[in-house]
Amino acid sequence: MTRHDPLKGIVSELSKLPGIGLKSAQRLAFHMLAQTQESLTELVRSIEDVRDHVKLCQRCFHLTYDEDECVLCQDTRRNGSTLCVVSDSRDVIALEKMGRFRGLYHVLGGVIAPLDGVGPDKLHIRELLERLKTEPISEIIFALSPSVEGETTTMYLTRLLKPLDLKLYQIAYGIPMGGELEWVDEMTLGRAFDGRRAL
Amino acid sequence: MTRHDPLKGIVSELSKLPGIGLKSAQRLAFHMLAQTQESLTELVRSIEDVRDHVKLCQRCFHLTYDEDECVLCQDTRRNGSTLCVVSDSRDVIALEKMGRFRGLYHVLGGVIAPLDGVGPDKLHIRELLERLKTEPISEIIFALSPSVEGETTTMYLTRLLKPLDLKLYQIAYGIPMGGELEWVDEMTLGRAFDGRRAL
Repeated sequence: MTRHDPLKGIVSELSKLPGIGLKSAQRLAFHMLAQTQESLTELVRSIEDVRDHVKLCQRCFHLTYDEDECVLCQDTRRNGSTLCVVSDSRDVIALEKMGRFRGLYHVLGGVIAPLDGVGPDKLHIRELLERLKTEPISEIIFALSPSVEGETTTMYLTRLLKPLDLKLYQIAYGIPMGGELEWVDEMTLGRAFDGRRAL
Repeated sequence: MTRHDPLKGIVSELSKLPGIGLKSAQRLAFHMLAQTQESLTELVRSIEDVRDHVKLCQRCFHLTYDEDECVLCQDTRRNGSTLCVVSDSRDVIALEKMGRFRGLYHVLGGVIAPLDGVGPDKLHIRELLERLKTEPISEIIFALSPSVEGETTTMYLTRLLKPLDLKLYQIAYGIPMGGELEWVDEMTLGRAFDGRRAL
């Protein structure tokens, strides 16, 4: 914090965030300056909340608040025999917004991308196999983005799980090719779920 | 904070910031989730710093850190007979980066904009007149953006100060018309300072 520019600290912190350059950071800093102390306290609290309380579910790797298992895994009304495999927690949030799927999830934490150094060992695949041993899962729906990496991952997992006695599905590509799952509207996601085909 | 979406709180807080929609807020939230506790603590601290320590200089209305007068006003090496009148603290920061001006500043806190309900009474003009009574100011340089509002404000102040025994200047419009002062590069700002003309 230089005395000369009292906003230097906040501007430098904000410009570390993705998609925020120096000028945007300055604009945000001046915006904050114009806010009430209460509203800045709210913002601070929400960041501290993420820092101190949000972690990953030990079962499906979706986000959880303070607890070891997320609310979805804990919800006994959900159908524990169907598992939807996604890349990211964002995808769980998108699919839950759609509201048509009532099974459980498994978040891989990414997709296989050799060029980025992401092999199957970096994803939560080992934990998926564990779950298949201990949970009464009979059906798996792959809901990965239709990119090269997403399709590769679906294919890899299909081959891995084929020997097991499971019904394997992939959501239908109502999703435009090259698109990202999290950006798709609920209607399209719903259609993709309906049109799932056996693998 | 719903248990269902542990990021709901932070996403809602972030999307209150200017230029940040829901999707960007979600992207920022996931970015924060991937950061270390230390780096989030840094971010929190910088926001608390703005909330608790940054205020306005009681003399020139530039930003100050904890003190009543900003470092520029306190700097006895600066020339107290020349005053540069700007709209905003951002402009002071931009002009200080240029580094050619060694006088003091007066931040109006905006420009006269009747359509937005900003009359002369909403700006720090009364305080400017006070300073002219108590400080040995002999020269004023107006450095307001060349917009309709900026020019109106310069004209208004010129008429107001004309009766006093002061040299009045306006920075030259090397600055492109319609542009905002804070976005101009240092070279152009420097030329604008050199080419100031008597009013």
